[in-house]
Amino acid sequence: MIAVDVMSGDNPPEAIIRGALKAVQELGVSVLLVGDSELIENYLKKIRFVDRRKVKIEHSSEVIGMHEVPTVACKKKKNASVMICTRLAGQKKAHGIFSPGNTGASLVSALMNIGRIEGVMRPGLVTYVPTLKGASILLDAGANLECTPEYLAQFAIMGEVFSSKVQKKKNPSVGILSVGEEKSKGNDLTLKTYEMLKDLDFNFVGNMEGYDIYDGDVDVIVCDGFLGNVVVKVTERVFKLTFEFVWQEIGYHLLQRIGFALGYPAIRKLNKKIDAREYGGAILLGLKGTMVVGHGNSDAVATYNGVRIADLMHKTKLNHAITERLVHFGLQRKGSADKE
Amino acid sequence: MIAVDVMSGDNPPEAIIRGALKAVQELGVSVLLVGDSELIENYLKKIRFVDRRKVKIEHSSEVIGMHEVPTVACKKKKNASVMICTRLAGQKKAHGIFSPGNTGASLVSALMNIGRIEGVMRPGLVTYVPTLKGASILLDAGANLECTPEYLAQFAIMGEVFSSKVQKKKNPSVGILSVGEEKSKGNDLTLKTYEMLKDLDFNFVGNMEGYDIYDGDVDVIVCDGFLGNVVVKVTERVFKLTFEFVWQEIGYHLLQRIGFALGYPAIRKLNKKIDAREYGGAILLGLKGTMVVGHGNSDAVATYNGVRIADLMHKTKLNHAITERLVHFGLQRKGSADKE
Repeated sequence: MIAVDVMSGDNPPEAIIRGALKAVQELGVSVLLVGDSELIENYLKKIRFVDRRKVKIEHSSEVIGMHEVPTVACKKKKNASVMICTRLAGQKKAHGIFSPGNTGASLVSALMNIGRIEGVMRPGLVTYVPTLKGASILLDAGANLECTPEYLAQFAIMGEVFSSKVQKKKNPSVGILSVGEEKSKGNDLTLKTYEMLKDLDFNFVGNMEGYDIYDGDVDVIVCDGFLGNVVVKVTERVFKLTFEFVWQEIGYHLLQRIGFALGYPAIRKLNKKIDAREYGGAILLGLKGTMVVGHGNSDAVATYNGVRIADLMHKTKLNHAITERLVHFGLQRKGSADKE
Repeated sequence: MIAVDVMSGDNPPEAIIRGALKAVQELGVSVLLVGDSELIENYLKKIRFVDRRKVKIEHSSEVIGMHEVPTVACKKKKNASVMICTRLAGQKKAHGIFSPGNTGASLVSALMNIGRIEGVMRPGLVTYVPTLKGASILLDAGANLECTPEYLAQFAIMGEVFSSKVQKKKNPSVGILSVGEEKSKGNDLTLKTYEMLKDLDFNFVGNMEGYDIYDGDVDVIVCDGFLGNVVVKVTERVFKLTFEFVWQEIGYHLLQRIGFALGYPAIRKLNKKIDAREYGGAILLGLKGTMVVGHGNSDAVATYNGVRIADLMHKTKLNHAITERLVHFGLQRKGSADKE
């Protein structure tokens, strides 16, 4: 059962519901739609071909907006859709969550209501990174702006397990994002992380540079959330801007304009490929449930994929594997707090 | 007089000399060519139209390679070309330097032989950033992997002065690269830097995101050298990769291939625009002389532009203006060491 927050996005709830129902129909997932129950009921009445036994509704009367301060909003709005989703997950009434909202609020409410996997110090935010060889993942993409080497070492292992279980990669490679490939290159944080990981028996490739991300030779890219957030945003913008730059250079040159028009289908295909909607959004790794946080502008496609990934994380017993792997490498924090 | 290190690049010294001589001819700059004097003499004999009174030669017997460890190499190779360049600048026999080499070695030898502007804590590495509105600058691009808020505050002011004097921008805007635009967004380093800058009377726009860099609304982007290094490399790679991605999507589609071919001149023009050679390379700001550090693959074009910028920094009395501005804002470190 995946709880779907139909209220927190920029798009109308109907778009989110449509994506969730597609997941029910095509993947056989059960969903719990959280939001204005009257609105949801009305929408469902119009839908013919859906197995209603697999669709439940939970009413919520509040929404946390994109620009609200997460800690404040989560304390004040106990009945916000995202708070209800995480509460249901905490009570094991849902295995996973998709919420297209405020990432900070998703994180805070998850920490309040679900809690971390035992031994995990901080959840990491995973995002997919388009590469010439498919998709790698990067974490932390912004959940933890200040990190310790211990956090980063755990991110490395959690990311490795995700890549292997959810992306089905065999023996995925893991690298630390730094300023050079040599082991002596880096700042205090990355150098210490390197020391923690270098002797562990997994496919650790050491340091990597900003140049190396998109070649796709490294499956799991580890960095602190401040760096990760900037890198993800820079990448997204530069990809799109490149075509604006080209258009600027073309100016009124007719032949080049024709060329641009002819090549445009490829650009569209590329845009689709690097579109976060294909992956549903970013993933919070290290929680007791599974949680995918969509972009604010998530539509039916993003929702479908978000529900799919949240369900896949559950079905592949990802969290169990994370625990095992952390214990195996002695990277589990002892006596960890369950909830924050 | 600009000292030109003709030996440290990947290209043959002749390419560097050619670029330096072009600066002599077109800009009237005097240059001091540092390298194998026999080789330089032989090359000069072949050139007819150059004012030999404006070209001096200084012999150097050693070179610091791209992959040598800067501190070790600078201590061992006292007669390396870059060491001689910085020594000449320290003795005021050259106002500025262009070296197409190991950035770390350039920095270390500059600190050994030239020293910082009084009151400047750390030199910052400036790189040009292509934007939709022209070029902004970003610093630090990798000279200081661990920074304090005081360093960043000085980078902000030094960058502002550079932008106004060398890029001739009026009242250039300065922003801190962070994870969001709100003043509450950031890590400990950026939040403290924000506090140091927010009440100063200059065009400070506060925090900016990874998305905002390439719009060109912020002229001077300030960040620590670790983040800056990664961002610059990510940008460079994504710009180039975008076309590889498009080509991948096009595959064997004939019409789209034709389109790509027709549009290619615009791509080439864009590549030229974002090419570091147009700016000569990166600039070390905060030294008593002026120093441009070219890419390893610098050619005649890069050298010409590097010499041009080093000379321009000198002629516009950039360092004097930096001192004045730091004193004005009370950001000068008292009792600073002259050399390291």
